[in-house]
Amino acid sequence: MERNKALSIVKEQLTENRYEHTLGVMETAIQLAERYGADVKKAELAAIFHDYAKFRNKEEMKQIIINQQMDARLLQFHHELWHAPVGAYLVQQEVGITDEEVLSAIRYHTTGRLGMTLLEKVVYLADYIEPGRRFPGVEEAREIARHNLDEAMIFALRNTITFLMRQNQPIFPDTFETYNDIIMKKGDTK
Amino acid sequence: MERNKALSIVKEQLTENRYEHTLGVMETAIQLAERYGADVKKAELAAIFHDYAKFRNKEEMKQIIINQQMDARLLQFHHELWHAPVGAYLVQQEVGITDEEVLSAIRYHTTGRLGMTLLEKVVYLADYIEPGRRFPGVEEAREIARHNLDEAMIFALRNTITFLMRQNQPIFPDTFETYNDIIMKKGDTK
Repeated sequence: MERNKALSIVKEQLTENRYEHTLGVMETAIQLAERYGADVKKAELAAIFHDYAKFRNKEEMKQIIINQQMDARLLQFHHELWHAPVGAYLVQQEVGITDEEVLSAIRYHTTGRLGMTLLEKVVYLADYIEPGRRFPGVEEAREIARHNLDEAMIFALRNTITFLMRQNQPIFPDTFETYNDIIMKKGDTK
Repeated sequence: MERNKALSIVKEQLTENRYEHTLGVMETAIQLAERYGADVKKAELAAIFHDYAKFRNKEEMKQIIINQQMDARLLQFHHELWHAPVGAYLVQQEVGITDEEVLSAIRYHTTGRLGMTLLEKVVYLADYIEPGRRFPGVEEAREIARHNLDEAMIFALRNTITFLMRQNQPIFPDTFETYNDIIMKKGDTK
Protein backbone atom coordinates (compact mmCIF):
# COMPACT_ATOMS: atom_id res chain seq x y z
CA MET A 1 0.00 0.00 0.00
CA GLU A 2 1.23 3.45 -0.94
CA ARG A 3 2.41 5.59 2.00
CA ASN A 4 0.02 8.50 1.54
CA LYS A 5 -2.97 6.24 1.22
CA ALA A 6 -1.97 4.35 4.37
CA LEU A 7 -1.46 7.61 6.26
CA SER A 8 -4.83 8.98 5.18
CA ILE A 9 -6.54 5.79 6.39
CA VAL A 10 -4.84 5.80 9.79
CA LYS A 11 -5.27 9.55 10.29
CA GLU A 12 -9.02 9.07 10.60
CA GLN A 13 -8.49 6.67 13.49
CA LEU A 14 -6.18 8.87 15.57
CA THR A 15 -6.03 12.15 17.46
CA GLU A 16 -3.73 14.84 16.07
CA ASN A 17 -1.08 14.03 18.72
CA ARG A 18 -1.19 10.34 18.06
CA TYR A 19 -0.95 10.95 14.31
CA GLU A 20 2.19 13.05 14.88
CA HIS A 21 3.57 10.21 17.00
CA THR A 22 2.79 7.78 14.18
CA LEU A 23 4.74 9.90 11.68
CA GLY A 24 7.69 9.82 14.10
CA VAL A 25 7.45 6.05 14.44
CA MET A 26 7.28 5.69 10.66
CA GLU A 27 10.43 7.77 10.09
CA THR A 28 12.30 5.99 12.88
CA ALA A 29 11.21 2.53 11.73
CA ILE A 30 12.48 3.29 8.21
CA GLN A 31 15.85 4.41 9.60
CA LEU A 32 16.17 1.34 11.83
CA ALA A 33 15.12 -0.99 9.01
CA GLU A 34 17.77 0.53 6.73
CA ARG A 35 20.41 0.32 9.47
CA TYR A 36 19.73 -3.28 10.49
CA GLY A 37 18.64 -4.75 7.17
CA ALA A 38 14.90 -5.23 7.76
CA ASP A 39 12.38 -4.82 4.94
CA VAL A 40 11.95 -1.04 4.74
CA LYS A 41 8.50 -1.05 3.11
CA LYS A 42 7.14 -3.52 5.66
CA ALA A 43 8.63 -1.51 8.51
CA GLU A 44 6.98 1.63 7.12
CA LEU A 45 3.59 -0.06 6.75
CA ALA A 46 3.66 -1.68 10.22
CA ALA A 47 4.73 1.62 11.80
CA ILE A 48 1.94 3.57 10.08
CA PHE A 49 -0.67 1.14 11.36
CA HIS A 50 0.85 0.20 14.73
CA ASP A 51 -1.63 2.32 16.73
CA TYR A 52 -4.61 1.81 14.40
CA ALA A 53 -6.81 0.50 17.25
CA LYS A 54 -5.51 2.90 19.92
CA PHE A 55 -8.81 4.75 20.30
CA ARG A 56 -11.24 1.87 19.92
CA ASN A 57 -13.37 1.53 22.98
CA LYS A 58 -12.47 -0.95 25.64
CA GLU A 59 -15.58 -3.06 25.28
CA GLU A 60 -15.12 -3.48 21.52
CA MET A 61 -11.49 -4.52 22.05
CA LYS A 62 -12.48 -6.95 24.78
CA GLN A 63 -15.05 -8.61 22.53
CA ILE A 64 -12.52 -8.96 19.72
CA ILE A 65 -10.00 -10.56 22.10
CA ILE A 66 -12.65 -13.04 23.23
CA ASN A 67 -14.23 -13.74 19.83
CA GLN A 68 -10.91 -14.10 18.02
CA GLN A 69 -9.60 -16.33 20.79
CA MET A 70 -6.57 -14.17 21.38
CA ASP A 71 -4.38 -14.70 24.47
CA ALA A 72 -6.99 -14.62 27.25
CA ARG A 73 -4.43 -13.39 29.77
CA LEU A 74 -4.63 -9.99 28.08
CA LEU A 75 -7.96 -9.38 29.79
CA GLN A 76 -6.33 -9.66 33.21
CA PHE A 77 -3.82 -6.95 32.32
CA HIS A 78 -4.07 -3.25 31.59
CA HIS A 79 -6.25 -2.43 28.55
CA GLU A 80 -3.37 -0.32 27.25
CA LEU A 81 -1.99 -3.64 25.97
CA TRP A 82 -5.10 -4.55 23.99
CA HIS A 83 -4.80 -2.14 21.06
CA ALA A 84 -1.77 -3.97 19.65
CA PRO A 85 -3.25 -7.44 19.00
CA VAL A 86 -6.67 -5.90 18.28
CA GLY A 87 -5.01 -3.48 15.84
CA ALA A 88 -3.34 -6.36 13.97
CA TYR A 89 -6.77 -7.96 13.61
CA LEU A 90 -8.56 -4.78 12.54
CA VAL A 91 -6.06 -3.69 9.90
CA GLN A 92 -6.54 -7.09 8.34
CA GLN A 93 -10.33 -6.89 8.51
CA GLU A 94 -10.86 -3.21 7.73
CA VAL A 95 -7.80 -2.19 5.70
CA GLY A 96 -7.07 -5.49 3.99
CA ILE A 97 -3.45 -5.87 5.08
CA THR A 98 -2.61 -9.57 4.99
CA ASP A 99 1.19 -9.67 5.25
CA GLU A 100 1.77 -11.76 8.38
CA GLU A 101 5.15 -10.14 9.07
CA VAL A 102 3.56 -6.70 9.11
CA LEU A 103 0.61 -7.89 11.19
CA SER A 104 2.85 -9.50 13.75
CA ALA A 105 4.98 -6.35 14.08
CA ILE A 106 1.74 -4.53 14.93
CA ARG A 107 0.54 -7.33 17.21
CA TYR A 108 3.66 -7.38 19.42
CA HIS A 109 4.65 -3.73 19.39
CA THR A 110 3.58 -3.17 23.03
CA THR A 111 4.38 -6.41 24.85
CA GLY A 112 7.12 -7.94 22.72
CA ARG A 113 7.22 -11.74 22.56
CA LEU A 114 9.59 -14.68 22.77
CA GLY A 115 11.65 -14.93 19.59
CA MET A 116 10.87 -11.51 18.14
CA THR A 117 11.66 -11.07 14.46
CA LEU A 118 13.90 -8.28 13.22
CA LEU A 119 10.88 -6.41 11.87
CA GLU A 120 9.06 -6.73 15.20
CA LYS A 121 12.06 -5.31 17.04
CA VAL A 122 12.33 -2.42 14.59
CA VAL A 123 8.72 -1.38 15.14
CA TYR A 124 8.86 -1.95 18.92
CA LEU A 125 11.94 0.22 19.22
CA ALA A 126 10.77 2.90 16.77
CA ASP A 127 7.67 3.29 18.95
CA TYR A 128 9.94 3.70 21.97
CA ILE A 129 12.45 6.22 20.62
CA GLU A 130 10.65 8.24 17.91
CA PRO A 131 11.58 11.93 18.03
CA GLY A 132 8.40 12.99 19.85
CA ARG A 133 9.10 10.78 22.88
CA ARG A 134 10.12 12.58 26.06
CA PHE A 135 11.10 10.52 29.09
CA PRO A 136 14.20 9.94 31.19
CA GLY A 137 16.53 7.66 29.29
CA VAL A 138 15.13 8.21 25.80
CA GLU A 139 18.32 9.90 24.59
CA GLU A 140 20.39 6.96 25.81
CA ALA A 141 17.98 4.54 24.11
CA ARG A 142 18.37 6.47 20.83
CA GLU A 143 22.13 6.38 21.16
CA ILE A 144 22.22 2.62 21.79
CA ALA A 145 19.82 2.05 18.89
CA ARG A 146 22.39 3.62 16.57
CA HIS A 147 24.82 0.79 17.32
CA ASN A 148 23.06 -2.33 18.52
CA LEU A 149 19.42 -3.29 18.08
CA ASP A 150 19.34 -6.01 20.75
CA GLU A 151 21.10 -3.83 23.33
CA ALA A 152 18.55 -1.12 22.61
CA MET A 153 15.74 -3.66 23.04
CA ILE A 154 17.17 -4.73 26.41
CA PHE A 155 17.43 -1.10 27.48
CA ALA A 156 13.83 -0.39 26.43
CA LEU A 157 12.45 -3.55 28.05
CA ARG A 158 14.35 -2.96 31.29
CA ASN A 159 13.16 0.65 31.46
CA THR A 160 9.58 -0.35 30.72
CA ILE A 161 9.54 -3.13 33.32
CA THR A 162 11.14 -0.86 35.93
CA PHE A 163 8.66 1.94 35.16
CA LEU A 164 5.66 -0.38 35.48
CA MET A 165 6.95 -1.92 38.72
CA ARG A 166 7.41 1.55 40.22
CA GLN A 167 3.75 2.17 39.49
CA ASN A 168 2.80 -1.13 41.13
CA GLN A 169 1.58 -2.44 37.80
CA PRO A 170 1.75 -6.11 36.85
CA ILE A 171 4.00 -6.97 33.91
CA PHE A 172 2.57 -8.93 31.00
CA PRO A 173 4.42 -12.28 30.91
CA ASP A 174 5.46 -11.86 27.26
CA THR A 175 7.38 -8.72 28.20
CA PHE A 176 9.43 -10.60 30.80
CA GLU A 177 9.94 -13.44 28.36
CA THR A 178 11.17 -11.03 25.70
CA TYR A 179 13.68 -9.56 28.14
CA ASN A 180 14.95 -13.00 29.22
CA ASP A 181 15.01 -14.24 25.65
CA ILE A 182 17.18 -11.43 24.31
CA ILE A 183 19.46 -11.40 27.39
CA MET A 184 19.99 -15.16 27.25
CA LYS A 185 20.73 -15.19 23.54
CA LYS A 186 23.61 -12.80 24.24
CA GLY A 187 25.62 -15.56 25.88
CA ASP A 188 25.95 -18.08 28.64
CA THR A 189 24.88 -16.52 31.93
CA LYS A 190 25.35 -19.54 34.15
CA MET B 1 13.66 -30.76 65.75
CA GLU B 2 15.14 -28.82 68.63
CA ARG B 3 16.76 -25.49 67.69
CA ASN B 4 20.27 -26.18 68.94
CA LYS B 5 20.41 -29.54 67.25
CA ALA B 6 19.24 -27.99 63.98
CA LEU B 7 21.79 -25.20 64.28
CA SER B 8 24.64 -27.62 64.96
CA ILE B 9 23.70 -29.65 61.88
CA VAL B 10 23.54 -26.63 59.58
CA LYS B 11 26.66 -25.03 61.00
CA GLU B 12 28.77 -27.81 59.51
CA GLN B 13 27.45 -26.99 56.06
CA LEU B 14 28.15 -23.25 56.13
CA THR B 15 30.92 -20.70 56.34
CA GLU B 16 31.09 -18.56 59.47
CA ASN B 17 29.55 -15.60 57.61
CA ARG B 18 26.75 -17.67 56.18
CA TYR B 19 26.03 -19.16 59.60
CA GLU B 20 25.77 -15.64 61.06
CA HIS B 21 23.37 -14.79 58.23
CA THR B 22 21.35 -17.90 59.04
CA LEU B 23 21.02 -16.82 62.69
CA GLY B 24 19.73 -13.45 61.47
CA VAL B 25 17.22 -15.10 59.16
CA MET B 26 16.07 -17.35 62.01
CA GLU B 27 15.45 -14.43 64.37
CA THR B 28 13.72 -12.40 61.68
CA ALA B 29 11.57 -15.31 60.52
CA ILE B 30 10.40 -15.89 64.10
CA GLN B 31 9.47 -12.21 64.45
CA LEU B 32 7.62 -12.16 61.12
CA ALA B 33 5.83 -15.42 61.92
CA GLU B 34 4.64 -13.99 65.25
CA ARG B 35 3.58 -10.74 63.62
CA TYR B 36 1.65 -12.29 60.74
CA GLY B 37 0.36 -15.47 62.36
CA ALA B 38 2.52 -18.09 60.68
CA ASP B 39 3.65 -21.23 62.51
CA VAL B 40 6.63 -19.99 64.54
CA LYS B 41 8.37 -23.36 64.94
CA LYS B 42 8.10 -24.11 61.23
CA ALA B 43 9.39 -20.67 60.36
CA GLU B 44 12.35 -21.22 62.69
CA LEU B 45 13.15 -24.63 61.20
CA ALA B 46 12.85 -23.49 57.58
CA ALA B 47 15.00 -20.42 58.30
CA ILE B 48 17.73 -22.51 59.95
CA PHE B 49 17.92 -24.83 56.95
CA HIS B 50 17.18 -22.37 54.14
CA ASP B 51 20.84 -22.21 52.97
CA TYR B 52 21.71 -25.81 53.81
CA ALA B 53 22.89 -26.51 50.24
CA LYS B 54 24.53 -23.13 49.66
CA PHE B 55 28.07 -24.53 49.45
CA ARG B 56 27.41 -27.76 47.63
CA ASN B 57 29.31 -27.89 44.39
CA LYS B 58 27.64 -26.92 41.16
CA GLU B 59 27.95 -30.32 39.52
CA GLU B 60 26.34 -32.11 42.49
CA MET B 61 23.46 -29.65 42.47
CA LYS B 62 23.02 -30.01 38.73
CA GLN B 63 22.82 -33.79 39.00
CA ILE B 64 20.22 -33.57 41.77
CA ILE B 65 18.11 -31.18 39.69
CA ILE B 66 18.26 -33.61 36.76
CA ASN B 67 17.84 -36.85 38.73
CA GLN B 68 15.02 -35.53 40.91
CA GLN B 69 13.29 -34.09 37.84
CA MET B 70 13.13 -30.62 39.30
CA ASP B 71 12.19 -27.66 37.09
CA ALA B 72 14.61 -28.09 34.19
CA ARG B 73 14.57 -24.36 33.44
CA LEU B 74 16.72 -23.89 36.55
CA LEU B 75 19.73 -25.17 34.61
CA GLN B 76 19.41 -22.33 32.10
CA PHE B 77 19.58 -19.77 34.90
CA HIS B 78 22.25 -18.70 37.35
CA HIS B 79 23.41 -21.51 39.68
CA GLU B 80 22.78 -19.14 42.59
CA LEU B 81 19.15 -20.27 42.26
CA TRP B 82 19.92 -23.97 42.57
CA HIS B 83 20.70 -24.22 46.29
CA ALA B 84 17.10 -23.55 47.28
CA PRO B 85 15.33 -26.50 45.60
CA VAL B 86 18.40 -28.70 46.09
CA GLY B 87 18.48 -27.70 49.76
CA ALA B 88 14.84 -28.72 50.22
CA TYR B 89 15.72 -32.11 48.78
CA LEU B 90 18.88 -32.58 50.83
CA VAL B 91 17.40 -31.64 54.20
CA GLN B 92 14.82 -34.30 53.55
CA GLN B 93 17.40 -36.91 52.53
CA GLU B 94 20.19 -36.08 54.94
CA VAL B 95 18.47 -34.44 57.92
CA GLY B 96 15.16 -36.26 57.78
CA ILE B 97 12.89 -33.22 57.67
CA THR B 98 9.63 -34.26 56.04
CA ASP B 99 7.25 -31.39 56.78
CA GLU B 100 6.18 -30.27 53.32
CA GLU B 101 5.43 -26.72 54.47
CA VAL B 102 8.95 -26.35 55.83
CA LEU B 103 10.49 -27.94 52.74
CA SER B 104 8.58 -25.69 50.40
CA ALA B 105 9.63 -22.57 52.35
CA ILE B 106 13.23 -23.69 51.76
CA ARG B 107 12.54 -24.61 48.12
CA TYR B 108 11.14 -21.21 47.14
CA HIS B 109 13.17 -18.88 49.32
CA THR B 110 15.20 -17.53 46.38
CA THR B 111 12.81 -17.42 43.42
CA GLY B 112 9.42 -17.19 45.07
CA ARG B 113 6.54 -18.87 43.25
CA LEU B 114 2.96 -18.33 42.16
CA GLY B 115 0.63 -18.59 45.15
CA MET B 116 3.24 -18.42 47.91
CA THR B 117 2.08 -19.55 51.33
CA LEU B 118 2.37 -17.34 54.39
CA LEU B 119 5.30 -19.42 55.67
CA GLU B 120 7.10 -19.17 52.31
CA LYS B 121 6.72 -15.39 52.35
CA VAL B 122 8.01 -15.19 55.93
CA VAL B 123 11.20 -17.09 55.07
CA TYR B 124 11.69 -15.28 51.74
CA LEU B 125 11.42 -11.92 53.44
CA ALA B 126 13.46 -12.86 56.52
CA ASP B 127 16.27 -13.81 54.16
CA TYR B 128 15.95 -10.41 52.49
CA ILE B 129 15.85 -8.17 55.56
CA GLU B 130 17.74 -10.02 58.34
CA PRO B 131 19.89 -7.62 60.43
CA GLY B 132 23.14 -8.55 58.66
CA ARG B 133 21.90 -7.43 55.24
CA ARG B 134 23.43 -4.23 53.85
CA PHE B 135 22.11 -2.86 50.57
CA PRO B 136 20.29 0.25 49.37
CA GLY B 137 16.64 -0.04 50.35
CA VAL B 138 17.01 -2.65 53.09
CA GLU B 139 15.91 -0.19 55.79
CA GLU B 140 12.78 0.66 53.81
CA ALA B 141 12.09 -3.05 53.30
CA ARG B 142 12.37 -3.62 57.07
CA GLU B 143 10.03 -0.72 57.75
CA ILE B 144 7.39 -1.99 55.30
CA ALA B 145 7.71 -5.50 56.73
CA ARG B 146 6.64 -4.14 60.10
CA HIS B 147 3.23 -3.21 58.66
CA ASN B 148 2.38 -5.26 55.60
CA LEU B 149 3.86 -8.57 54.50
CA ASP B 150 2.63 -8.44 50.90
CA GLU B 151 3.81 -4.86 50.40
CA ALA B 152 7.19 -5.90 51.73
CA MET B 153 7.22 -8.85 49.33
CA ILE B 154 6.44 -6.52 46.41
CA PHE B 155 9.21 -4.18 47.50
CA ALA B 156 11.71 -7.04 47.77
CA LEU B 157 10.71 -8.60 44.45
CA ARG B 158 10.80 -5.26 42.63
CA ASN B 159 14.24 -4.46 44.05
CA THR B 160 15.56 -7.89 43.18
CA ILE B 161 14.25 -7.79 39.62
CA THR B 162 15.59 -4.26 39.11
CA PHE B 163 18.98 -5.24 40.53
CA LEU B 164 19.26 -8.29 38.27
CA MET B 165 18.18 -6.35 35.18
CA ARG B 166 20.81 -3.68 35.87
CA GLN B 167 23.38 -6.48 35.83
CA ASN B 168 22.01 -7.77 32.52
CA GLN B 169 20.93 -10.98 34.23
CA PRO B 170 17.89 -12.97 33.14
CA ILE B 171 15.07 -13.23 35.66
CA PHE B 172 13.77 -16.66 36.64
CA PRO B 173 10.13 -16.83 35.45
CA ASP B 174 8.82 -17.77 38.90
CA THR B 175 10.15 -14.50 40.29
CA PHE B 176 8.19 -12.48 37.75
CA GLU B 177 5.14 -14.61 38.38
CA THR B 178 5.43 -14.04 42.11
CA TYR B 179 5.57 -10.28 41.57
CA ASN B 180 2.56 -10.33 39.22
CA ASP B 181 0.64 -12.68 41.49
CA ILE B 182 0.97 -10.55 44.61
CA ILE B 183 0.38 -7.27 42.72
CA MET B 184 -2.73 -8.61 41.01
CA LYS B 185 -4.22 -9.99 44.20
CA LYS B 186 -4.10 -6.48 45.64
CA GLY B 187 -6.93 -5.39 43.38
CA ASP B 188 -8.22 -4.84 39.88
CA THR B 189 -5.60 -3.08 37.80
CA LYS B 190 -7.55 -2.79 34.58
